[in-house]
Amino acid sequence: MNKKIKVGIVGHGNLGRGVEMAISHTNDMELAAVFTRRNPDSLTPLTKNVPVYSVNDILNFKDKLDVLILCGGSATDLPKQGPELSRHFNTVDSFDTHAKIPEYFDAVDASSKGAGKVGIISVGWDPGLFSIQRALFGAVLPTGKDYTFWGKGVSQGHSDAIRRIEGVKDAKQYTVPVASAIEGARSGENPELTTREKHTRECFVVAEEGADLARIENEIKTMPNYFADYDTTVNFISEEELKRDHAGIPHGGFVIRSGKSGFDSETNHVLEFSLKLESNPEFTSSVLVAYARAAVKLNTEGVSGAKTVLDIPLSYLSEKDGATLRKELV
Amino acid sequence: MNKKIKVGIVGHGNLGRGVEMAISHTNDMELAAVFTRRNPDSLTPLTKNVPVYSVNDILNFKDKLDVLILCGGSATDLPKQGPELSRHFNTVDSFDTHAKIPEYFDAVDASSKGAGKVGIISVGWDPGLFSIQRALFGAVLPTGKDYTFWGKGVSQGHSDAIRRIEGVKDAKQYTVPVASAIEGARSGENPELTTREKHTRECFVVAEEGADLARIENEIKTMPNYFADYDTTVNFISEEELKRDHAGIPHGGFVIRSGKSGFDSETNHVLEFSLKLESNPEFTSSVLVAYARAAVKLNTEGVSGAKTVLDIPLSYLSEKDGATLRKELV
Repeated sequence: MNKKIKVGIVGHGNLGRGVEMAISHTNDMELAAVFTRRNPDSLTPLTKNVPVYSVNDILNFKDKLDVLILCGGSATDLPKQGPELSRHFNTVDSFDTHAKIPEYFDAVDASSKGAGKVGIISVGWDPGLFSIQRALFGAVLPTGKDYTFWGKGVSQGHSDAIRRIEGVKDAKQYTVPVASAIEGARSGENPELTTREKHTRECFVVAEEGADLARIENEIKTMPNYFADYDTTVNFISEEELKRDHAGIPHGGFVIRSGKSGFDSETNHVLEFSLKLESNPEFTSSVLVAYARAAVKLNTEGVSGAKTVLDIPLSYLSEKDGATLRKELV
Repeated sequence: MNKKIKVGIVGHGNLGRGVEMAISHTNDMELAAVFTRRNPDSLTPLTKNVPVYSVNDILNFKDKLDVLILCGGSATDLPKQGPELSRHFNTVDSFDTHAKIPEYFDAVDASSKGAGKVGIISVGWDPGLFSIQRALFGAVLPTGKDYTFWGKGVSQGHSDAIRRIEGVKDAKQYTVPVASAIEGARSGENPELTTREKHTRECFVVAEEGADLARIENEIKTMPNYFADYDTTVNFISEEELKRDHAGIPHGGFVIRSGKSGFDSETNHVLEFSLKLESNPEFTSSVLVAYARAAVKLNTEGVSGAKTVLDIPLSYLSEKDGATLRKELV
């Protein structure tokens, strides 16, 4: 029997816990250690008998782990951790600030290539599975138009933005794709869709006692970048209702390409990929774990440097070998 | 400016003509020659100024073409042409006899590897894009169940089977996925679906004058393998109606995975990929052309041997370079 792939988790929020769960669905991987910036004694992994260490001691584990899954955030954690840790370990992360991906790629590439390690960045569903579909769809039907829709699902960033408003105790925001816009994308007529036409925003807000609800609602609806460009509805509910009805972190989305073939582009085709997720972090973690396997396989073959999901053959994600995949899945 | 990739087409049926159309949607590829088993003078490509040669003379073009797209059938053409031609050229084909893919892979691998060429087999949408989705879905959610549905679309094999019945002048058969079965697959309840529950078959038949329609209908509905296991409807129509209403070759389908995460597999996720194609051969050809580009890129890097769609990073399919893809699509 082959030795199992030894995984280290860096950061133990929703994503780190999801990685623990995802590893339990594999036969070829095991969780070897969890690293945290907090006091290691304050944290108990969900998996039995897994040690917790301070991230400050992580270099002691250079030869003991096959891959690190970086479960920090894209704003401040990953821009620092990605380049630092990929100098010593194979790494996988879910860096999702789209505009900064080229710059982040270059930083991880420089550190990992010199060290002979593989750093797979921006893994998850968008970026991630959606990137794969956009690349595939565009390559097979170069004449056409892509549409990406998100939701229905919880946007953590938008929920946080509402919570920062004075008088708000707690809040949850759902991004909702507009059904008629999705139908338009599928129609083959390549409509131009504005931001407002593609998504609406639904807010569930728990206000402090005595707070001015009209002011809160107005502050939400007029907030630049987050809400002003959308049709937004605000529902004030009790703390109990928020806990009872909005505890989950569901999400989902669609990538639709309406493309053409024929000399005069007279033949229409519609390609569509969609996700419906009961737990956004658990699913993102499942994708991270599959790419952690790929990082180890690639590195074992002598590959090094930064990679995205577009650089990696799908066969590397699977526990199964090439012959089995050809027999069962091709 | 880089030199364009020089493509040769072997076989000039619906697929070969589709490849001509698909090349016209690229900026980096050109059709250099068409090869046929027929008299070359009897064939005029759709693309202007493209020479036609006998396939018997194809070895004269060993150093003049970057890749051959094999547009023959899986029953008799490809099992012979794939191994023969991949000994001399980079090749791409749409071999689609699922059960024989492992054997065909080995034959193309043996011939192409020795010659330092790349042979990409089983390219199209099933096998092809559907294989990619099944591999991706299974790797990210290993606990779960896949469903593949085909249609609504024309099955050439089933149409041919009807045409072989005595008294049938012409026929077209549509494979139709059952809406309630698709809903079941999406439900997350992992239903077991029988062949009969997943698809129905709709036949449009032009009978010879005076033919026994009841006998024809019975022969269709009881035909083993093709129709006996399905709910089949038979519609007799005129030759004019067949030409007017059933001239197209549309197709499509769905790959749905209902998968679980969480330690107790208590969290449900549904991943879905679907196609709606106005022309099955034109779309299949578009996929072949993208993989022809990949074959040339791989071979330029020194790669050789047989490959399937699971062995090739998505970035190889695109005209765009890695940095552009990261910026625009990841």
